[in-house]
Order: sequence, then structure tokens, then C-alpha cells
Amino acid sequence: MTRLKFYYDLMSQPCRALYILLKINKIPFEPCLVNLRKGEQYADFFKNQISRFQKVPVLHDKDFKLTENVAILRYLTREFQIDDHWYPKDSKKQARVDEYLEWQHNNTRLNCTLYFIHAYLNPRLMGKEVKPEELAAYKRNMEETLNKIEDLWLGQGTKYLAGDVISYADILAACELEQPRKLHSKE
Amino acid sequence: MTRLKFYYDLMSQPCRALYILLKINKIPFEPCLVNLRKGEQYADFFKNQISRFQKVPVLHDKDFKLTENVAILRYLTREFQIDDHWYPKDSKKQARVDEYLEWQHNNTRLNCTLYFIHAYLNPRLMGKEVKPEELAAYKRNMEETLNKIEDLWLGQGTKYLAGDVISYADILAACELEQPRKLHSKE
Ligand SMILES: N[C@@H](CCC(=O)N[C@@H](CS)C(=O)NCC(=O)O)C(=O)O
Ligand SMILES: N[C@@H](CCC(=O)N[C@@H](CS)C(=O)NCC(=O)O)C(=O)O
Repeated sequence: MTRLKFYYDLMSQPCRALYILLKINKIPFEPCLVNLRKGEQYADFFKNQISRFQKVPVLHDKDFKLTENVAILRYLTREFQIDDHWYPKDSKKQARVDEYLEWQHNNTRLNCTLYFIHAYLNPRLMGKEVKPEELAAYKRNMEETLNKIEDLWLGQGTKYLAGDVISYADILAACELEQPRKLHSKE
Repeated sequence: MTRLKFYYDLMSQPCRALYILLKINKIPFEPCLVNLRKGEQYADFFKNQISRFQKVPVLHDKDFKLTENVAILRYLTREFQIDDHWYPKDSKKQARVDEYLEWQHNNTRLNCTLYFIHAYLNPRLMGKEVKPEELAAYKRNMEETLNKIEDLWLGQGTKYLAGDVISYADILAACELEQPRKLHSKE
């Protein structure tokens, strides 16, 4: 029996980021699929047994239950063997990765998700209309975030978001950015 | 000369949280006030010398510049003597504090700030009108967050947000929550 149970839906960006991290570092886990479109996260069983927050990703390490992909990443680096560059032990290098992981919540994550919800999920899946000027505002916010990623992060002369080696910051950013990108490649 | 320079404005919740942490742990720093109302963060000097993100808090540890209060907290716990309960070294206890610090970005932080901006800053300081139904929506989101703090966090039977001892999660939450509370105590 594996020690870890990982609850996820690959529709979810933070789930994909952790899934990649787990696979690439060969950390064994029991995969537990949660179908968000079917609303499985709202079932009483999920709320009582899996996570009171009713969202994914969720990690169970025996009876220790943890949510929030960034908190889970950090926990995994303490408990398992993870190649150092994904989340460096060096204090300053780690701080650089942390800086992006904290920054992204109200930038990459918030603005790409809001755009995706209003440009795709609401009108195409839920049949909810979105006003053109509202959609334009969401798009503007997303583009502002994309400019910051190019200018303030990648424009620093480092090869990756938080330094010259690839880190979890890059995985998480890629998972967030591919969502709206896919949308436009379909149009 | 002290090693740390701390750039802050006590109008800012994450600045207040770090200020409390630094003071309570007697970590020496050079206080560098940034007047956000005067827009000092937009000056070229600030952008080029202090932080390209043009926000506070910012920490300079000699020539190492770091933003994001949660990243700064973690850096300080590695570099200085900080009482363990503020950010426990124990892996599972630390994960609990991390879980709140990640969760709050798009809950406590986002929803209390949006309400404060639309209920106070925009109408009273900037002379910008806010539609009653929009304000009501921001208030609803904030109240939803407050309910989650009571039910999902404090309702777990622990004395504090992330366990039975006070941690940085409680400082940060208190700094975010006092902002809209003050607003209503003035009305
Ligand atoms: N801040 C959390 C975000 C968790 C989250 O929002 N998960 C979404 C999928 S990306 C979810 O489960 N949504 C289902 C729902 O809200 O009903 C993290 O980074 O892990
Ligand atoms: N996520 C950042 C937030 C930084 C932030 O938004 N700071 C605000 C004050 S609370 C600021 O400097 N605003 C000035 C501006 O945006 O012009 C943190 O937690 O440190």
C-alpha cells in the first residue's frame, strides 16, 4: 500500500502541476480521481472524508490531510526525495521560488482563471452570457499579468521564472498559462 | 549598520503583519517608510532601486531584494532566530500554517481588500461611485470568507487558525480582518 493518496482532476491547473511534480520525481501515490464537472467535490463523502474545503488538489499522507498546491509541494519536499532544483534548499534560491509562488495567486492564477471562466466556461458550458465590456476587462487584466511575467519575471535575465534552473514555479505557471492559450488555439 | 532594510507603509496589511513579526522577535532592521498615498512606490527610484514590482512590503538583506510577505516570512525564519510557534519547523505543523498562508490570498486577502476598496477607498477618498448591487456582491464574498474562517478553520477545534499555538497565519489574518472592521466601527 502506498503512503500517499492524491485527489485530483486534470482539468485543474494546480492538480496538473502537482501531478507532474509527483510523476517526474517518481513519488509513488494512489491516484484518486475527482470529477469536478460531475460535482463530486460537493458530495458529503468528499466533504467529510476527503477535504472540508471541497476543492482539489488534496493530499492524504495516511491520516494527515492537506490542501493548497503550494503547501503540498513544500510538504512533499520535506518528506520525499525531490530533485533540489524544483524547490531549492539554498535559502536565497528558495526565496526566489517562493516569491513567484506567492505572487502568482493574485496575478497568473486569478487573472487567467477569471478570463477562462468568462470566455469559455460560462458562455460555452453553462450557457451564461458575458457582457463584451466585462470580457474585455478580464482580458486586459490577463494581458497585464502576461506583460508582468515577460517584463518583471523573465525580463530579469534568468532562464526560468525564478533563476537559471527550472523550478516548480515554472511548472505551475505553465499549467495556468496553457489554459487560456488552448482556448484561443481552438477558435 | 543593520543587515536588513524593511520598506513598508503601515496602511498595508501584509506590511503590518511583517512589522509585528520583526518587532516581536526583536530582529533589528532599518525602517524605510514608503508613503503609498503619495504614490512613492511609482517613483523611478523605487522601481529601479527598491523593487521592480512597485509594491510594499519589500525586504533588502544587503543586496538581496525580496517581495511577498509570505516569502519574506519564510526567508526570515531561515536566516534569523524566530520563536518556533510563529512558523513551526515540524513538517506537519508547518504544512498547516502554509495551508492557511496559501489559502488566504484568494479568500481573506482578496475579498476583504475588494470590499474595503469599494466601500471606503473609492467612494470616500477617490470620489468614485460604486453601484449598490456591486457593493453588496463584494460584501457577500467577504462574508462568505468570514464564514469559512469560522467554520472551516476555527471550527476545527484548534485554538488558533493553524493549530493550538499562535502562528504567523493569525497575525496575517488579524491584519486583513481589522481593515474592514475599522470601517464599520466608524460608521
Ligand atoms: N488555491 C488552491 C486552489 C484550489 C482550487 O481552486 N481548485 C479548483 C480547481 S482548479 C476546484 O477544486 N474547484 C471546484 C469547486 O470550487 O467547486 C490550490 O492552489 O490548490
Ligand atoms: N501579495 C503581496 C501584496 C503586496 C501589495 O499588494 N501591496 C500593496 C499594499 S497592501 C501595495 O503596495 N500597493 C501599492 C500599489 O499597488 O500601488 C504581499 O503579500 O506582500
